[in-house]
Amino acid sequence: MLSGWPKEYFMVIFTSQRTESEPSHYALMAERMIELAQQQQGFLGMESVREDAGLGITISYWRGRASIEAWRRNTEHQHAQRLGRQEFYSWFQTRIGKVTEERSFGLDNI
Amino acid sequence: MLSGWPKEYFMVIFTSQRTESEPSHYALMAERMIELAQQQQGFLGMESVREDAGLGITISYWRGRASIEAWRRNTEHQHAQRLGRQEFYSWFQTRIGKVTEERSFGLDNI
Repeated sequence: MLSGWPKEYFMVIFTSQRTESEPSHYALMAERMIELAQQQQGFLGMESVREDAGLGITISYWRGRASIEAWRRNTEHQHAQRLGRQEFYSWFQTRIGKVTEERSFGLDNI
Repeated sequence: MLSGWPKEYFMVIFTSQRTESEPSHYALMAERMIELAQQQQGFLGMESVREDAGLGITISYWRGRASIEAWRRNTEHQHAQRLGRQEFYSWFQTRIGKVTEERSFGLDNI
């Protein structure tokens, strides 16, 4: 378990396909959303990977379901969500749930 | 909700960093594991993204926790898990939990 993380916690899995819209515009928005998420109460961490072809998975981890709801309703985040639907993503899927078990390999010194 | 999927289901999030070991050897193993996972009882689906720098996230979805345990103990999968620790990954983290909510955009016709 990562130090300081609770034994059980919540996650949002965001699987998405980028459109071919302006990459620099998207990168600015994505960086700002990471910065903003990190400032939210209950935020634990985030993992994000995107392939050159535009398929991506971003997972954010949270202390409680209420923190996820507050983040979803954040005004600046809501603006980004609108841009996402209008411009940045051809499709996406969001899944919310609870992580109850974890194991790791090779991470002892990180 | 994807048609045929239960309202709630389990997931395994596998976040990993590839070593610089032989890519073709790894690709063969990875393809075989996807094929084999799809044949397991309780398997629902899989999403996988890896960046050129070797960071990857693979998520598999399952009907129940018992299906995940059976897959973990599968003999051919256990062999692949050993290769993963010995050769393919410099680190990885596995998280298990339950998906309880989902939303999507732009996926109606897929």
